[in-house]
Amino acid sequence: MSQETVVLAYSGGLDTSCILLWLLEQGYNVIAYMANIGQEEDFEVARKKALKIGASKVVIDDVRKKFVNDFIWPAVSAGLIYESRYLLGTSLARPCISQGLVHVARQEKAQFISHGATGKGNDQVRFELSCYALWPQVKVLAPWRIESFIKRFQGRQDLIEYAAHHGIPVPVTKKEPWSMDANLMHISYESGVLEDPAKPAPDEIFQMTLHPQHALETPCKLQINFEHGIPLSIQNLTEGGPVETDPLQMFTVLNQLGGQHGVGRIDIVENRFIGLKSRGVYETPGGTILHTAHTDLETFCLDREVLRMKTFLRDKMADYVYNGFWFSPECEFVRECIALSQHYVTGWVQVELYKGSVRAVARNSQVALYNQTLVSMDMHGEFQPEDATGFINTHAIRLREFQRFKTQLEDSHI
Amino acid sequence: MSQETVVLAYSGGLDTSCILLWLLEQGYNVIAYMANIGQEEDFEVARKKALKIGASKVVIDDVRKKFVNDFIWPAVSAGLIYESRYLLGTSLARPCISQGLVHVARQEKAQFISHGATGKGNDQVRFELSCYALWPQVKVLAPWRIESFIKRFQGRQDLIEYAAHHGIPVPVTKKEPWSMDANLMHISYESGVLEDPAKPAPDEIFQMTLHPQHALETPCKLQINFEHGIPLSIQNLTEGGPVETDPLQMFTVLNQLGGQHGVGRIDIVENRFIGLKSRGVYETPGGTILHTAHTDLETFCLDREVLRMKTFLRDKMADYVYNGFWFSPECEFVRECIALSQHYVTGWVQVELYKGSVRAVARNSQVALYNQTLVSMDMHGEFQPEDATGFINTHAIRLREFQRFKTQLEDSHI
Amino acid sequence: MSQETVVLAYSGGLDTSCILLWLLEQGYNVIAYMANIGQEEDFEVARKKALKIGASKVVIDDVRKKFVNDFIWPAVSAGLIYESRYLLGTSLARPCISQGLVHVARQEKAQFISHGATGKGNDQVRFELSCYALWPQVKVLAPWRIESFIKRFQGRQDLIEYAAHHGIPVPVTKKEPWSMDANLMHISYESGVLEDPAKPAPDEIFQMTLHPQHALETPCKLQINFEHGIPLSIQNLTEGGPVETDPLQMFTVLNQLGGQHGVGRIDIVENRFIGLKSRGVYETPGGTILHTAHTDLETFCLDREVLRMKTFLRDKMADYVYNGFWFSPECEFVRECIALSQHYVTGWVQVELYKGSVRAVARNSQVALYNQTLVSMDMHGEFQPEDATGFINTHAIRLREFQRFKTQLEDSHI
Amino acid sequence: MSQETVVLAYSGGLDTSCILLWLLEQGYNVIAYMANIGQEEDFEVARKKALKIGASKVVIDDVRKKFVNDFIWPAVSAGLIYESRYLLGTSLARPCISQGLVHVARQEKAQFISHGATGKGNDQVRFELSCYALWPQVKVLAPWRIESFIKRFQGRQDLIEYAAHHGIPVPVTKKEPWSMDANLMHISYESGVLEDPAKPAPDEIFQMTLHPQHALETPCKLQINFEHGIPLSIQNLTEGGPVETDPLQMFTVLNQLGGQHGVGRIDIVENRFIGLKSRGVYETPGGTILHTAHTDLETFCLDREVLRMKTFLRDKMADYVYNGFWFSPECEFVRECIALSQHYVTGWVQVELYKGSVRAVARNSQVALYNQTLVSMDMHGEFQPEDATGFINTHAIRLREFQRFKTQLEDSHI
Repeated sequence: MSQETVVLAYSGGLDTSCILLWLLEQGYNVIAYMANIGQEEDFEVARKKALKIGASKVVIDDVRKKFVNDFIWPAVSAGLIYESRYLLGTSLARPCISQGLVHVARQEKAQFISHGATGKGNDQVRFELSCYALWPQVKVLAPWRIESFIKRFQGRQDLIEYAAHHGIPVPVTKKEPWSMDANLMHISYESGVLEDPAKPAPDEIFQMTLHPQHALETPCKLQINFEHGIPLSIQNLTEGGPVETDPLQMFTVLNQLGGQHGVGRIDIVENRFIGLKSRGVYETPGGTILHTAHTDLETFCLDREVLRMKTFLRDKMADYVYNGFWFSPECEFVRECIALSQHYVTGWVQVELYKGSVRAVARNSQVALYNQTLVSMDMHGEFQPEDATGFINTHAIRLREFQRFKTQLEDSHI
Repeated sequence: MSQETVVLAYSGGLDTSCILLWLLEQGYNVIAYMANIGQEEDFEVARKKALKIGASKVVIDDVRKKFVNDFIWPAVSAGLIYESRYLLGTSLARPCISQGLVHVARQEKAQFISHGATGKGNDQVRFELSCYALWPQVKVLAPWRIESFIKRFQGRQDLIEYAAHHGIPVPVTKKEPWSMDANLMHISYESGVLEDPAKPAPDEIFQMTLHPQHALETPCKLQINFEHGIPLSIQNLTEGGPVETDPLQMFTVLNQLGGQHGVGRIDIVENRFIGLKSRGVYETPGGTILHTAHTDLETFCLDREVLRMKTFLRDKMADYVYNGFWFSPECEFVRECIALSQHYVTGWVQVELYKGSVRAVARNSQVALYNQTLVSMDMHGEFQPEDATGFINTHAIRLREFQRFKTQLEDSHI
Repeated sequence: MSQETVVLAYSGGLDTSCILLWLLEQGYNVIAYMANIGQEEDFEVARKKALKIGASKVVIDDVRKKFVNDFIWPAVSAGLIYESRYLLGTSLARPCISQGLVHVARQEKAQFISHGATGKGNDQVRFELSCYALWPQVKVLAPWRIESFIKRFQGRQDLIEYAAHHGIPVPVTKKEPWSMDANLMHISYESGVLEDPAKPAPDEIFQMTLHPQHALETPCKLQINFEHGIPLSIQNLTEGGPVETDPLQMFTVLNQLGGQHGVGRIDIVENRFIGLKSRGVYETPGGTILHTAHTDLETFCLDREVLRMKTFLRDKMADYVYNGFWFSPECEFVRECIALSQHYVTGWVQVELYKGSVRAVARNSQVALYNQTLVSMDMHGEFQPEDATGFINTHAIRLREFQRFKTQLEDSHI
Repeated sequence: MSQETVVLAYSGGLDTSCILLWLLEQGYNVIAYMANIGQEEDFEVARKKALKIGASKVVIDDVRKKFVNDFIWPAVSAGLIYESRYLLGTSLARPCISQGLVHVARQEKAQFISHGATGKGNDQVRFELSCYALWPQVKVLAPWRIESFIKRFQGRQDLIEYAAHHGIPVPVTKKEPWSMDANLMHISYESGVLEDPAKPAPDEIFQMTLHPQHALETPCKLQINFEHGIPLSIQNLTEGGPVETDPLQMFTVLNQLGGQHGVGRIDIVENRFIGLKSRGVYETPGGTILHTAHTDLETFCLDREVLRMKTFLRDKMADYVYNGFWFSPECEFVRECIALSQHYVTGWVQVELYKGSVRAVARNSQVALYNQTLVSMDMHGEFQPEDATGFINTHAIRLREFQRFKTQLEDSHI
């Protein structure tokens, strides 16, 4: 029987290096797949490492543009936010990486995909549901859920010894007492010392953003243009400079500015799909700026009742995405509905970044439902004030009836 | 026929002073009602003014404790926020004031209630729906919707002339080019120069909060205790001092601290109930701190699916309250449901205030659904990692089926 | 000043005949507009009557095809049902008629539209909101809300006398002690003796359907084909005959069959938009058959989670339509979303009509998410039964945690 | 090591008899648990059979009253209906049986619970989630998901041979080519010949209801009284007889009457929790009558907006219950909320049963929001018709604005 091929989502770190070797030991041909999704990484060092361990091939896939255009932009226009606070940086990256994994696996006629996500987390679900949705026939090897693997590697020390024993370079610095995951959109931190939600997170964990106290002293005012709910360009009104219009470049600049002003840090306990609560610390500088600006413009542009429906769709979609259902019929459907809702979300918003916060301060749209003439207190215009009387009185019918009813009820001693 | 009595919601300002006089001219006996709802006001000066104009009686009603206990606290525990941003400071005050108006009107056997709210705004709706719900038989006189009044007073200048002519003291300082409404929870600013949403609001409008750039240099860490979702006590961890437990005192201290740290300013365009969009600028220092803290604790304490239901109820209730339906069967029902949901929301949250932002940094609860042992990456505990395989595979059935279906569909050229 | 023109929604009955004359008396030039929306009516008799009274023109507009294609079909594919029971026959007709009214008014350069709907009902709202949405500048004359009209015509007897006095033919038969409104989709009955909800409706009111006890003795089996959620053709499997494919013809045949089998009668108390509860009796034979069939096929074809979202949209849209917001941004948006959801709702359903009921008994689709091989108890196929273990155990985590939490809570006496 | 004890949900049929024996073979001490939940069954025959096979004990538990009071009544008052059609008869029975299983297991100090539900169905989930929620420490043995069991028993024939070989009485009649599950509330039929949804179900499957064509010729009118949303008493208005007030007796009578009139048959394809679609045929005579009556009374009694919220809660709860989450924090929460909503649902409904259908024809409540005086077309009462003008005009603001906006948009060629 010919050797079976596995495409492994490889990070270059200790875990996936050991998994690579372990898969080879199980008799698989292993292709290491690395997505460049915006994380800080020396991909060439990682490539050499994977080849040295025994990967038959290493694919380094720059998915950053795809990540911005196909995942971050839709999330911004949808206004996705999980449990009122988390902007879903990791949740959005997983289906993007999965697309690459499946693409390479099909191309290489591999039957298996493997990853190093653990058995209690969300990422295993996101990777696997994405892969199964994109390619129902694929098989997944998740070593952290395979009994023989788990028994062999009961702690980090086991991995280090295994690596050292087989000549895999072992990290020389002591591991930070937390884990992190980085991409263009955010860095997430969890586990280790962060597992006690009653203890504030150490200041030193953050890498994309300055602490608000050490952020720039001067506020920065930005103008962000949207077309149909999608960021079109940004302009630094405080410092001037060029108008950015390339999506990846725009997002990169927003990350830099947000980072310098300490924008986008949150410390939360969230509900994982598998039913556990976990503490996560996140920094999402550019995403936070865009979320603030888009929310502002959308409320400005959309009819109230359309906004209500869109908000409902937004909350459902945030759950779909968090839970790993980006590639699902329901997420596809809701994404299309939300895109319809964004038809009129075109205009600009000015936001101010300062010492950890971002606030919308002005907005405009060439055409908008906002009608200054109509709302002005100084003009009656076509508005008849007496109409409000009928409006109120008619809405009051139901309330008066309820009061009458309750009085009747009390009087009848029921 | 005997003279009819009107209870007028009196502010001491130019508009309601003119309305008072106008009502007297129409032959009513007028009782001026002033609610002390936490606004900065010299009530005694206002009392004298009202009596001088001709009010038969002036009632000054300190409703601050009621406002905190019966309106702000339920709003905090419900997590009320309108269109994702506005904490409903004015919307909550109106039903509270209406209670006082109705109480006095019944006591004084007045058939009428009157107010100075304009014909395009939300407040007329909130006042009147509240009054009608509390006392279905009451009649409302809303001069800004009465034709003869509107024709006589077409602009501010007409009011000034009318006041001057009748010896009502006229403000000597030039009116600010915007209007404001203050209470314990917030100050709102709108109209005038604020009507152009593309122009940032002038810095000088704010009165409760320092500009973030001029806020205190040192962050402040607070601990807030909640019991069943209601604030129980607060403690300034940075500066020490007493643990505050009196509701009004707690809220006052939070306002002061929030104000010193520039917390709680927003600049938004919102959707009014009557169908207009309007630009509003708000500062809600204490309310913003409590909203942040409560949201954090609630997500920590509630089961995920209960949280989803509660969030849906929250969003509906925010609309009810904004639209003036505090005293309605639906709001009463949802309030009771939300109170049920808060049964387990007991514990503390630590928040940090700094230069315009407030962030939760730690939280705890004596008993909580959060289970550090279970979530820890270092322990398997009673969790079987292989269970996740079945969980994922089963969730994948639907996604794989959908993919199969779409392929089949393409192949069949339908 | 030149005479102003009113387009009056004219029914040929006593009320709108009197309104026509009254409008002429007020000095208007009146064009009578009659929509043929499927009601039983001698339009030529009505035409002559209107001209005799003094209408300058009578427009008889056959909108039946438009009613089916643009209103009934979208309602069927949306699955619209108000308060779980009412299929919205009148609510759908009003915006359709309003389109015709506005079209004629624009064409004739009339500034006014008038109708005979009363001041407590839903129809005034539906007519006027539709007209205002389609043509914001139009003015509406609603005599039943105009003081001088109401005072003059305080009861039906006043109308009869007015008519007799002016030579308007007066109905010779005694009016039925209820009112009715008919169109292609249904007949509704309300008011009069029906106002007591504790008294069953008289059997003799119904006109489209036989009483179930007098319905045909033999069941009728129909096959209904849908494409993208829209009825495509129907076939009478019991009696044979041609396959109907013309929309209007299909609906007419369904009405006949439904009527012969006593299908589609309901007797309900519903919540009107203006805040009253009213008792309505409806017969909707064809619509009930299509609703049953479409619901069956849709559940068969749609992914579960898409179905959940669609059901939410359905319920919102039913409220929009009932309340008169067919032509609104929110209804337009939701209609487009629902159309997206119907992409895969293609196939047939067999229903059986018998003595008042209609039941789906079989359904198929050339391609469908239903997978007989997969669901069969006799085959394991690609389904691994042990996956269900992990699925259940993982879902149980949250429930077990909650139990642990409650026990802990009890033990700690909190 | 001492022998471990299993409590087996025993039906007396072939499957659970073989499971009983198989568990004994695996070395377990087995207690057979049979819930009398209203199914037709000779419990004493089953008891003897279980003892003969080797059960150490047989517990026959009459849970019928509990089933009605704690499961059916709450479902009726909640208005639970799954995917618009299924009244959840099986879904409600499973948590009720699970309570009994857990009670016996705890009493008998058994660590294990076992059941005969298959690996693709909903019932395994419902049993196990209920058991885990009630007793987090329990272990479940689900033989149809245990590899050795599945391999041994690949088809019905294997079970028959195994039974015959071990002297277990084997059914002498040929098995029906479908499976069924019966309880007090309904009988469900699925699998076998029913797996083809394009073929109508055979007429002979039904056991609780007559075919509508063979149902009684005379309609039956019933009056059902509810208090706080719970059935209080029933009375046969057509035939007279006693007023039933005992819950179990009431439900039994409703089943008989519904059965004689052919009420409550449905044939649907539904979405299972595990992601498959399956065809189910159900007969729910009494439940259908109560659902119809309760829906009618509730719409009559509840304020419109409370009804909207309750309907949302209803739909969520139906999913919870269908999916097996009866004992979950979310279901408990929603159940309490719904109970609050039912406070005013007190009154009676008259329904008519005839040849397969049940229709509400009259309803009343001693106190009710329905206000005949107010709604009557013949009286103006305290209702001012001109108020409707302002109501409509104000609601039209948003629609006119949207039209203005779209025109502006077209003119600006954006």
